[in-house]
Amino acid sequence: MIIILDGRTPDPDLRGVLKRLEEKGFRHDVSRGEAKIIIGAIGVPDAAKANLAEQLSALSCVERVIPIMKPYKRVARDFRPEGTQVKVGDLALGGPRLHVMAGPCSVESRAQILEVAQAVKEAGATILRGGAFKPRTLPYDFQGLGEPGLEFLAEAREKTGLKIVTEVMDPRDVKLVVKYADILQLGARNMQNFPLLRQVGKVQTPVLFKRGMSATIDEWMKAAEYILSGGNEKVILCERGIRSFDSQYTRNCFDLAAVPVVKSLTHLPIIADPSHGTGVRSLIAPMARAAVASGADGLMIEVHPEPSKALSDGQQSLTPREFASLMKEVRRVCEAVGRCL
Amino acid sequence: MIIILDGRTPDPDLRGVLKRLEEKGFRHDVSRGEAKIIIGAIGVPDAAKANLAEQLSALSCVERVIPIMKPYKRVARDFRPEGTQVKVGDLALGGPRLHVMAGPCSVESRAQILEVAQAVKEAGATILRGGAFKPRTLPYDFQGLGEPGLEFLAEAREKTGLKIVTEVMDPRDVKLVVKYADILQLGARNMQNFPLLRQVGKVQTPVLFKRGMSATIDEWMKAAEYILSGGNEKVILCERGIRSFDSQYTRNCFDLAAVPVVKSLTHLPIIADPSHGTGVRSLIAPMARAAVASGADGLMIEVHPEPSKALSDGQQSLTPREFASLMKEVRRVCEAVGRCL
Amino acid sequence: MIIILDGRTPDPDLRGVLKRLEEKGFRHDVSRGEAKIIIGAIGVPDAAKANLAEQLSALSCVERVIPIMKPYKRVARDFRPEGTQVKVGDLALGGPRLHVMAGPCSVESRAQILEVAQAVKEAGATILRGGAFKPRTLPYDFQGLGEPGLEFLAEAREKTGLKIVTEVMDPRDVKLVVKYADILQLGARNMQNFPLLRQVGKVQTPVLFKRGMSATIDEWMKAAEYILSGGNEKVILCERGIRSFDSQYTRNCFDLAAVPVVKSLTHLPIIADPSHGTGVRSLIAPMARAAVASGADGLMIEVHPEPSKALSDGQQSLTPREFASLMKEVRRVCEAVGRCL
Amino acid sequence: MIIILDGRTPDPDLRGVLKRLEEKGFRHDVSRGEAKIIIGAIGVPDAAKANLAEQLSALSCVERVIPIMKPYKRVARDFRPEGTQVKVGDLALGGPRLHVMAGPCSVESRAQILEVAQAVKEAGATILRGGAFKPRTLPYDFQGLGEPGLEFLAEAREKTGLKIVTEVMDPRDVKLVVKYADILQLGARNMQNFPLLRQVGKVQTPVLFKRGMSATIDEWMKAAEYILSGGNEKVILCERGIRSFDSQYTRNCFDLAAVPVVKSLTHLPIIADPSHGTGVRSLIAPMARAAVASGADGLMIEVHPEPSKALSDGQQSLTPREFASLMKEVRRVCEAVGRCL
Repeated sequence: MIIILDGRTPDPDLRGVLKRLEEKGFRHDVSRGEAKIIIGAIGVPDAAKANLAEQLSALSCVERVIPIMKPYKRVARDFRPEGTQVKVGDLALGGPRLHVMAGPCSVESRAQILEVAQAVKEAGATILRGGAFKPRTLPYDFQGLGEPGLEFLAEAREKTGLKIVTEVMDPRDVKLVVKYADILQLGARNMQNFPLLRQVGKVQTPVLFKRGMSATIDEWMKAAEYILSGGNEKVILCERGIRSFDSQYTRNCFDLAAVPVVKSLTHLPIIADPSHGTGVRSLIAPMARAAVASGADGLMIEVHPEPSKALSDGQQSLTPREFASLMKEVRRVCEAVGRCL
Repeated sequence: MIIILDGRTPDPDLRGVLKRLEEKGFRHDVSRGEAKIIIGAIGVPDAAKANLAEQLSALSCVERVIPIMKPYKRVARDFRPEGTQVKVGDLALGGPRLHVMAGPCSVESRAQILEVAQAVKEAGATILRGGAFKPRTLPYDFQGLGEPGLEFLAEAREKTGLKIVTEVMDPRDVKLVVKYADILQLGARNMQNFPLLRQVGKVQTPVLFKRGMSATIDEWMKAAEYILSGGNEKVILCERGIRSFDSQYTRNCFDLAAVPVVKSLTHLPIIADPSHGTGVRSLIAPMARAAVASGADGLMIEVHPEPSKALSDGQQSLTPREFASLMKEVRRVCEAVGRCL
Repeated sequence: MIIILDGRTPDPDLRGVLKRLEEKGFRHDVSRGEAKIIIGAIGVPDAAKANLAEQLSALSCVERVIPIMKPYKRVARDFRPEGTQVKVGDLALGGPRLHVMAGPCSVESRAQILEVAQAVKEAGATILRGGAFKPRTLPYDFQGLGEPGLEFLAEAREKTGLKIVTEVMDPRDVKLVVKYADILQLGARNMQNFPLLRQVGKVQTPVLFKRGMSATIDEWMKAAEYILSGGNEKVILCERGIRSFDSQYTRNCFDLAAVPVVKSLTHLPIIADPSHGTGVRSLIAPMARAAVASGADGLMIEVHPEPSKALSDGQQSLTPREFASLMKEVRRVCEAVGRCL
Repeated sequence: MIIILDGRTPDPDLRGVLKRLEEKGFRHDVSRGEAKIIIGAIGVPDAAKANLAEQLSALSCVERVIPIMKPYKRVARDFRPEGTQVKVGDLALGGPRLHVMAGPCSVESRAQILEVAQAVKEAGATILRGGAFKPRTLPYDFQGLGEPGLEFLAEAREKTGLKIVTEVMDPRDVKLVVKYADILQLGARNMQNFPLLRQVGKVQTPVLFKRGMSATIDEWMKAAEYILSGGNEKVILCERGIRSFDSQYTRNCFDLAAVPVVKSLTHLPIIADPSHGTGVRSLIAPMARAAVASGADGLMIEVHPEPSKALSDGQQSLTPREFASLMKEVRRVCEAVGRCL
């Protein structure tokens, strides 16, 4: 931690700051200039010190406090420098092979999900997506089928061998969804839903953890720390587009640089979702290729047998035929970057 | 709803679109240009039509679908054109008198909350704020005292006559918090926590509903619709700063134009929180004055007896003395805009 | 300047960094921790050192370089702690009296500008705005009358005694515009048009310097340094709204907290432009009141005799009658904050 | 154009709107609902109508005006549906072959630019970048060598056969820079410097036209229209990162979805600049690969022989060796998407 004081800070105030650092176990070095005093404080952060930076900031002689250590531990690359492969049954996310999660935004009926499952399986997907509990901006929109939706997903898994990823929104539903899902999805709107993070931290089902739509990368890592520190280390991150000032041609701004940034910060695998990242059908294929080229460990793609009849996200869903074509393009880029599909 | 088609759309495709509009009960008028075909579709939206705009967007002949009706009903100004005053015991939010909610970010101890309550009461606040359940970016930060914190708040209410506003984060805690709180606070991170919105929609305690940190005003109104449509119409909105590209001097960008915008869109009262809106102690007073001048129905201000010892938000907390001084300035601006405090 | 190195940096690399600091005249103190090495470097920045922070950042052992001194000098509050009043003839911007600049977006005709000038004068404005050179997003839009527009402005000045503020966009036009204008306006799009900044730095006409639409406050101060360091210290800053993720109800996000922030950073006066800041006629009055309450030294307001016939910005222009009513409201808020109009 | 009126608009007001449409040559159809009246107005936009949408917005009965035609013509895809290849001597930008522009941020000396030119030529670049006139945030930073810098670039061209791209910032310098440059670069800060756009519209040298750092895609296209409508149709667009709320790990947010979006909107070629797009050396290679995978027609990459001695942008410059390695990776991705290098 670095503390910058006004150069005219009286000695007793300076000593007061140094004393508070000592009480919390920090060593310190002081550089005195005319305009500023710089304190370099070295120590190992732990829970008891968590508020110190904020508290020192509230002193009138303190101009700025600059943390230098990452505030998260279990999520940090250093925690497992070789990287983590998250096992989902016999699949491994974060290894040399990329995995594609595909399927409809919402599970709408047994027939629909079985049809899509078959189609995406044939095209090369290994994991089926489909929402049974849907976060919708309006209370009057379709909210998902609930448990029957989960049962249809389970049937699709049996028929195709695909794994299942599906969203959980309510801490009270975690127990139920865990019975069906191979991967629990936490959506962008719930990235800082801390009670929900604590609940999924208590189970051992892998978690697909989407970035919040205006979350900084640091906030995302700190939120992931809730899940890992709770006991569940099987976290797969997912970049899905962030909010920008321009939403005329895309629903979100697909922040692909987050992929290599996150890979340097953490040992966890990261996939990318160009369907939400762009929100526009014609942009999904080029941005899926770009995501793979940037180093993503997998993709999540919305596929619907008839997008203009979809109960949600039709405008960003591919038909099965379009998805099959995308998979061919993605496979070539995978090979160009030394991965396989 | 307006649907814009490519001017070269074949007749059968155009007829297909018109048929889907008719099935949902829309009347339509078609303007044909060389480059574009415009369909004006008039009808009363209801739940069954909710997905139609999205679905039509997924058709290849459709270039854009533009909704023209507000998607929320109970929140809309038209629902109660004269405006709503939310009653909190004998107080009324949204009337000629402004109300100031003041107190610490977190309830830290019985002594702390009793001391602050007394001080803010004397300075003119009518409502005491204080968090017992705290959403924190890191799992290692102070998470609040839980139910004992609520008990301390209740004791402060008894001693001072102040009403109490306190946050609830978990749908499972609503029942507990309702036993103590006069107003339930929903924080920025939970603006789209739909299970929580549904839960507070089922009770009759007034709700202070903060804008999400990157929520558009429309998303905020739609989220409020969850609470009102669930049965609880006692919603007080709160602008608390949004995310911008510049966070060097302020924690958030305090979007005060949202105050008059929201007043034109909805009948609900709106207050402003310059503590979170700026995140910097020296900016709270000028922005509190500005908030009142913009037309806000109240303020929420963080006050702590010793900010440099606060367990959260010390850098944006006023001392009781600073708060008393702010209240004097705010009173003068109130009078200049024809309100009282 | 603070330099943070990886804790495992070999001694020769550390010594290399220290040597470069010494060569540029910095004293340094080193704090060694296991994970990080912190160097506090104290020195007086000057031109020769300008690139050092960037250069050190390019070393592989350096994790971060954190500047601690403000990079601008003449703009900084310390340069003239008592504050600057910019004189415009017999007016002073930045003193106890607020000044309102009002008039049409564009000068459209002699009759139009004379009519508006008379009206805003009567309502209490002291400065007439009107564009003769207009930056327009499209080449097909009205681009301003050019020099004849300047002549009409000068005539309006003679008839009313109002001062004139008008925009200059092209460094080649500075000589011409200076002949007519009392204040040169630099628009948001030109905040980092460095050749233009250099050119207005060479004259002694006061400059109204608008914040760029996505400029950080620091970038704005650095850009103002171009003008002051060029020799023109008569700079009036103007907050006019920044770009945000939500432009459904407002054209920009009016960042009023910038007013008190800027007042703490610099000695220069700052006014606010709620016409561009909101882009919506009904929001101008509440946000003008809020701007004054936040501490602004003046306002800039668009007024047009018939907004629905305006050649630019009609949707954000007040009629003379609306402007007169706004002035009354603004006057009351002025008095509440101890200023006059 | 679509005009939405309040459903309670009196007939005379509605007729007034229709009359104004007719005067400007628009046909119209009216859809009357209880809550809203929709007018679909069909006509060919031209200069005389440019302000009509804004003007109608200023009428109190008008709630919204929605343009439906693209406001730019020469830039639009329809203007040349087969796409444009911009010829730079014997090279063609926008054809099957990708071109890489590489070199230092600033030309610092004859030796430096000759060394870099040789290195990037060997690695496969076809165009040499280097700034002689530099837009810098502070007046105290290195501002470029001016004309001697241009002469060094010309010498490097002679020695290597590379084409030259270099920035022009001042309309008064266009004549000079045109004497040396094969491509004129317009930087992000000058995207809406309209006098400069007009000046480069008058010459026939190809223009590399960077997106402004907070420009919407539409604003970028409209600004390009200035150049094309001025007479210079040799415009190459360049995505270089936009401003976002998170700048902790990247200098900008590299908006790669803009590549396929722009390709659908315009016939002009588009390249991408991952050096500015990320601002971080380690992110350049993955994002260069991603840019190619997204469909970009070329890349712009900063290369410096010794980044830690660079007079600008050292932290985002590759060494020649790193650049050669990047070129190998990029070549493989090129082939995977059916292009060559």
